[in-house]
Amino acid sequence: MEKFDLYLPTRLVFGKDRISELPELTKSYGRKILLTYGGGSIKRSGIYDRIKSLYQGAEIFELSGIEPNPKIDSIRQGVEIIKQHGIDFILAVGGGSVLDASKNMAAGAFYDGDPWDLVVDASKIGRTLPIFAVLTLSATGSEYDNSGVITNDATHEKMPIFGNMWPVASICDPQYTFSVPANQTAAGAADIMSHTFESYLVRHGNTLTDGFCEAMLRTVIKNAPVAIREPHNYEARAELMMASSFGCCGLLNIGREVSPWVCHGLEHELSAFYDITHGVGLAILTPVWMKYSLNAETAPRFANYGINVFGLDKNADVMSNANKAIELTAAFFKEIGLPSKLSEIGIDDSHFEEMADHVRKIWFGDFKYALRPLDRQDLINILKGCL
Amino acid sequence: MEKFDLYLPTRLVFGKDRISELPELTKSYGRKILLTYGGGSIKRSGIYDRIKSLYQGAEIFELSGIEPNPKIDSIRQGVEIIKQHGIDFILAVGGGSVLDASKNMAAGAFYDGDPWDLVVDASKIGRTLPIFAVLTLSATGSEYDNSGVITNDATHEKMPIFGNMWPVASICDPQYTFSVPANQTAAGAADIMSHTFESYLVRHGNTLTDGFCEAMLRTVIKNAPVAIREPHNYEARAELMMASSFGCCGLLNIGREVSPWVCHGLEHELSAFYDITHGVGLAILTPVWMKYSLNAETAPRFANYGINVFGLDKNADVMSNANKAIELTAAFFKEIGLPSKLSEIGIDDSHFEEMADHVRKIWFGDFKYALRPLDRQDLINILKGCL
Repeated sequence: MEKFDLYLPTRLVFGKDRISELPELTKSYGRKILLTYGGGSIKRSGIYDRIKSLYQGAEIFELSGIEPNPKIDSIRQGVEIIKQHGIDFILAVGGGSVLDASKNMAAGAFYDGDPWDLVVDASKIGRTLPIFAVLTLSATGSEYDNSGVITNDATHEKMPIFGNMWPVASICDPQYTFSVPANQTAAGAADIMSHTFESYLVRHGNTLTDGFCEAMLRTVIKNAPVAIREPHNYEARAELMMASSFGCCGLLNIGREVSPWVCHGLEHELSAFYDITHGVGLAILTPVWMKYSLNAETAPRFANYGINVFGLDKNADVMSNANKAIELTAAFFKEIGLPSKLSEIGIDDSHFEEMADHVRKIWFGDFKYALRPLDRQDLINILKGCL
Repeated sequence: MEKFDLYLPTRLVFGKDRISELPELTKSYGRKILLTYGGGSIKRSGIYDRIKSLYQGAEIFELSGIEPNPKIDSIRQGVEIIKQHGIDFILAVGGGSVLDASKNMAAGAFYDGDPWDLVVDASKIGRTLPIFAVLTLSATGSEYDNSGVITNDATHEKMPIFGNMWPVASICDPQYTFSVPANQTAAGAADIMSHTFESYLVRHGNTLTDGFCEAMLRTVIKNAPVAIREPHNYEARAELMMASSFGCCGLLNIGREVSPWVCHGLEHELSAFYDITHGVGLAILTPVWMKYSLNAETAPRFANYGINVFGLDKNADVMSNANKAIELTAAFFKEIGLPSKLSEIGIDDSHFEEMADHVRKIWFGDFKYALRPLDRQDLINILKGCL
């Protein structure tokens, strides 16, 4: 059993129309708000008008156009607005990209230099501006954690930022995800599953969080196809939204060895170079990484996954169950419409060496602590296996 | 899917010798400390001396002798010390009883009347004193929730208190439970399991928290016998301690119907009248309540429990699996040395009617929302079934 800290100060406010409670939740935080969002979907869905009507009389400044794989330039703009107008809190409405960008802005609010510095060196993060979130996509778990992922196009870098940036409260209304299209629902499902795999498939686990992880995986595998088939199915959308919050918050890691999150590390390289959807990259990488990590020593972990998540026969041969579990994972991603090869999304091997070098330099974890220890060549081999 | 709030602001600080981090954790909270504990075990174990040495130069006041099923009189004493000396924070060292009592003291610190008022009427709880906890028993989950259970001997009442009383941080060092004797280890295990059953065995669940609950149950069933056989087994003690924190914090309830916690309601009546160990009462009540709640409609829930926790054959008859699951629950409690009849601990039926009336009057939940709806006579029948 590894030592751990578990600290989850965000209040999750989950259910239909809980957005109506926002003014009460924010009332002691001031009335100068920076509303951050992505494209026009929050206008089409009515959330934008709802917020305007909930905050009549407040001063609302806006930063829209925050892109998927959010760029440091957007964050710089946000920080400028915050500093210029003395913003009291950020109201972030969107999925992981808007939330992640808002976290970097919250940290940048009290920092004198360029907000990218805070991505490169978390020790520079001091006081942060309060953030409230309204979630519109079940995927990254940013609504319930203290981290984000920011892209710097100038340097081809997509890097995590960690710090005192937990949202004060996150409104999670599954209805807001009814309009999420099938491909994004699927990519979100792959992201939740990948967060879980990065915690689950480590060398030292424990009974409690093995079970928590398996419950996460069963939840996504059961509900993602339903949500794709029936976008307005509240129960399915709700189960996915609930699961998304636990993927990245630390709960799934407690008492376990913390792995270097291999697929996340490599995916950040892919999307830094090619700006692909995070969940798509993960869905391609995950089964290849699993297969690459499978050996006599690691097989029992994959076999248990197969037994406890896919209901494989517990009396069958361990290696056979392990192989089946990996095949079923790949088949599931395919079933929900995700690509299974990098070549399908126009990526070739031209930057693989650069990616392997870069991820080893900047990533938070050492790949020698992965389920199967990985060196530079292993990382390249995994990327090649995805072609 | 039911709406929910999840709010877990306590920092869990888990692992060997994490107590050394207490002064850093408490440093912004002042230097006037009320140290609360039970009997002499914290002196024998060395925790008492350790705290004294960690807080050299601080003013430490003490309230010892906090009893199991903590009494309102102890709390009154604690509140008096707090008010008299202007205490900055409470450092509670012990199991659920010490922590629960300390929570009531924390709420009493800023209340002008009798602290029992705050048990009877939670709306009277305003500001509370900060609490830090050092856990020495894996059972109640008080280290990670905002509630407690307080006994008033004068009125034969044992009642829950809920309010803004989350510990700021809880030190969870499994080594501190090495000296917990077998009977208390077993009673703690029954308490953790009962918290889980009260969340798990409801009419409306969901995939995610069904799985979380099953992981909790598997963890206790696997590790309690090991901890009893090998009291110094760190892994077993650690798994139990980790599980204890999630029993009562709300995580297992999210998105589920909240049941009236039937066994807890009835057990509080038993221990209010007879001062028995909470976990012992729960172990006796639980299988009887399960059997009483089993019918054609509820059988699938019990059968799933049997399949996912005890590994029963998923293709077997539902009612047969349900019955087996309940029998295995009773057998498990027996295996870890807990009594299975009230008559074994000297309780007869002389107060059952009074108990049924009282619990229906004071309990937070309405028993008609139990897995099988229960009226006054049903509650009496369950108690009689325990004789």
